[in-house]
Amino acid sequence: MSHHWFDDPVSDLDDVVLAAARGRQSQLTKPPGSLGRLEDFGVVLAAMQGTQQPRVDHVWITVFAGDHGVTAEGVSAFPQVVTAEMVRNFARGGAAISVLAREWNARLEVVNVGTVQPLEDLPGVLDARVGSGTANFVHGPAMTVAQLHDALIAGRDAAERAAIGGAHLFVGGEMGIGNTTSAVAVACSLLGLPAAQLAGPGTGLDAVGVVRKALVIERALAQHRSDQPLVALQRLGGFEIAALAGAYLRCGQLGVPALVDGFIATVAALVAVRLQPQLAAWLFYAHCSAEPGHRRLLDALDVKPLLDMGMRLGEGSGAAVAMPILRAAAALHARMATFTEAGVSQT
Amino acid sequence: MSHHWFDDPVSDLDDVVLAAARGRQSQLTKPPGSLGRLEDFGVVLAAMQGTQQPRVDHVWITVFAGDHGVTAEGVSAFPQVVTAEMVRNFARGGAAISVLAREWNARLEVVNVGTVQPLEDLPGVLDARVGSGTANFVHGPAMTVAQLHDALIAGRDAAERAAIGGAHLFVGGEMGIGNTTSAVAVACSLLGLPAAQLAGPGTGLDAVGVVRKALVIERALAQHRSDQPLVALQRLGGFEIAALAGAYLRCGQLGVPALVDGFIATVAALVAVRLQPQLAAWLFYAHCSAEPGHRRLLDALDVKPLLDMGMRLGEGSGAAVAMPILRAAAALHARMATFTEAGVSQT
Repeated sequence: MSHHWFDDPVSDLDDVVLAAARGRQSQLTKPPGSLGRLEDFGVVLAAMQGTQQPRVDHVWITVFAGDHGVTAEGVSAFPQVVTAEMVRNFARGGAAISVLAREWNARLEVVNVGTVQPLEDLPGVLDARVGSGTANFVHGPAMTVAQLHDALIAGRDAAERAAIGGAHLFVGGEMGIGNTTSAVAVACSLLGLPAAQLAGPGTGLDAVGVVRKALVIERALAQHRSDQPLVALQRLGGFEIAALAGAYLRCGQLGVPALVDGFIATVAALVAVRLQPQLAAWLFYAHCSAEPGHRRLLDALDVKPLLDMGMRLGEGSGAAVAMPILRAAAALHARMATFTEAGVSQT
Repeated sequence: MSHHWFDDPVSDLDDVVLAAARGRQSQLTKPPGSLGRLEDFGVVLAAMQGTQQPRVDHVWITVFAGDHGVTAEGVSAFPQVVTAEMVRNFARGGAAISVLAREWNARLEVVNVGTVQPLEDLPGVLDARVGSGTANFVHGPAMTVAQLHDALIAGRDAAERAAIGGAHLFVGGEMGIGNTTSAVAVACSLLGLPAAQLAGPGTGLDAVGVVRKALVIERALAQHRSDQPLVALQRLGGFEIAALAGAYLRCGQLGVPALVDGFIATVAALVAVRLQPQLAAWLFYAHCSAEPGHRRLLDALDVKPLLDMGMRLGEGSGAAVAMPILRAAAALHARMATFTEAGVSQT
C-alpha cells in the first residue's frame, strides 16, 4: 500500500504554550472558570497558534459543491438542479453563507468538485470537477478510487490556500442536493448503525420520504458497507464530503484550526478522524443541527458543539454563526488584564 | 398612587412588518425553517425596528456598578473593594466586557450607581451614585424608596442615551460584589421560592459558603419577602439591579431591543417584566449561566437563551458573546436573496 499525502502526520499542539495558557487564564481579571468554555477555547487556540495572543480575525471559508447520483431514488425535497443554482447564488452573494462571510469579513470561496453539468465561469468559484456528480451508490460505488483521491486533493488544496492566506480558522461548507443521504450512508457504514438511526428529513422530506430515504440507504449498506473510512467514503460518499475530509486532514497537518459545520461536515470529520485520530485536537464543532442524527454523530465523536440553534442549512452557515464565539475567546485570552496588571484583589 | 415614568406603556411590535417578515423568510434561498431560531430572531428584529432591513450593527453596552451591604455577612468569595477595582479595570479596558466591546465595535459605558466610596474621575465612567452601597438587607430594607427611584432613573437614562446614540441593541451589564446574594433574594421573593432553590456559588463560594449564603437570604426573606416587584427590589435588591430593570423598561418604551445577560440581569428582567408584562417582547436572553439557579429563572420567564457556555462572569459578558448571533440573524434576514431574485428552484 502506497503512502499518500493524507497519511502524513497531523501537527502536535504546543504543550509549553498550552501550559502557559492555562496559567494565564488563572491570572486574568475574573473569577477562575467564570468564562466557562471560552477559557478552554482560548487556551486551545493559544496552543494551536503557538502564542498567548491567539486571533480568529482571518477566517477562510471554502464551500464545496457536488452532485449525487442517489438523487435518482427521490431522496431529496429539492431538484438536483438546485446544487448548480445555489453555486450561482453563492457567487452573486445572495446565499446565507455569502451574507455571513461579508458580515464577519471572512474570505469565501466556492469549489465545484462535481456538479452534474460544468458551470460557466463564476466569480469566486473554482472549477475542480472530479466528475459529473457521483454514481448512484445503490447500484455501485459512488466514485472511483481516482475520483476519491481527486476530491480529497480538492479539499487539501483549499486548506493550503487558507494557510497561505494566513487564515486563523478554516470553515468548510458544502452544497449538494442529496448529500444528507450520502452522509448518513457513510456514517452508518463507519459506526455500524442501521440507516433508520441516522436518516432524517434533510432539506425537508416528510415522514414517508424519510422512510424511503432510509430504505435506499439500507439497500446500499447491504451491498457495500465498510468500516474503513476511505472505503466507505468511496463507495457511499460525495465529492464534497471527501473534499471536506481532505481539507480537515490538511488543516491538521498545517496546524490550522478548523470549525466543523453541521451534519454533513461532521460526517466528513468522522471520516478524517477515523483515518487520523490525532486530527481531533484541531477541530471545533460549531453546532448541533436540527437533522436528528447529528446529536448521535457528535456523541460518537465525543465532542460538544458550540451552538444549538435548530439550524439545518449547511453551506458552512452554522460554523459562520458560531465563529464569533471563538473570536471572542481568542480576544479575551489575548487582551484581558491580569489581576496584577489591573491592581484587582483576589480571593 | 402617583404615576411614574416606568408606568408608561411599552411600545408595540409592528404587526404589519412582522407578517411581512415571516413572508420574506419563506422566500429566502434556503429550505423553509433551515436557519432555525435565527429565522425567528430576524423576523422579530424586523418587527422591532419596523423594517425588513434590521441591523444589529450599533450595540450599546452599559455596565452598572454598585456595592452591597449584605457582603458584611460573608456571602462573597471576593472582598468588597473589588467592585471599585473592577470599575477601574473597565475604564482601562482590561476587563472581559472591555475586550468584547472593542472586538465588536460596541459602545461601552460604565455607570457607578453606588460604590461604597466615591470614585475618582475615570474615562467612560459616569457618576450616578445613589448611595454608599445598599444597606445590609438582613437588618432592614436594602434601599430607601427614593434611592430605588434614583437607581431606576440611572437605568432609564442609560437606555435613553442608547436610543439617542442610534443603538440597534442594548446590553446591560453589572458589577457588584455580593450581587448574586441580592439577586437570589429578589427572585425568591417574587417567585415564592426558598433561598436554597436559587442560591449558588456566585464568584466562587464553596459548598459551606453556599449554605451560609442561603441562610442569610432566608433570614432576609422571613423578614420582608414581597411578591410586588418594586417592593422586593427596594427591600432586597441592589442599585445596579434596579438600574438594569429601569434600563430594560425604558428600552421597551423606546422600542430598543435588549439582550439580557446572565443571572443578575435576568433577575432585573424578571422585576421589569413583572411590572410590565408587555416588556417581554423586547428582550432576548443571551445565555444560561453556570450559576445553578439561572435555568430555573429562565424557565420561570418561559424564555430560551441563545447560549449555554458555562459562563458566570456578569459585566454583560455573556450578552457580548451572544450578540453576534443576533447580528447574523439580522444580516441574513436583510440581505439574503429570495428564490426569485436568485433564480433558484423551489420544492
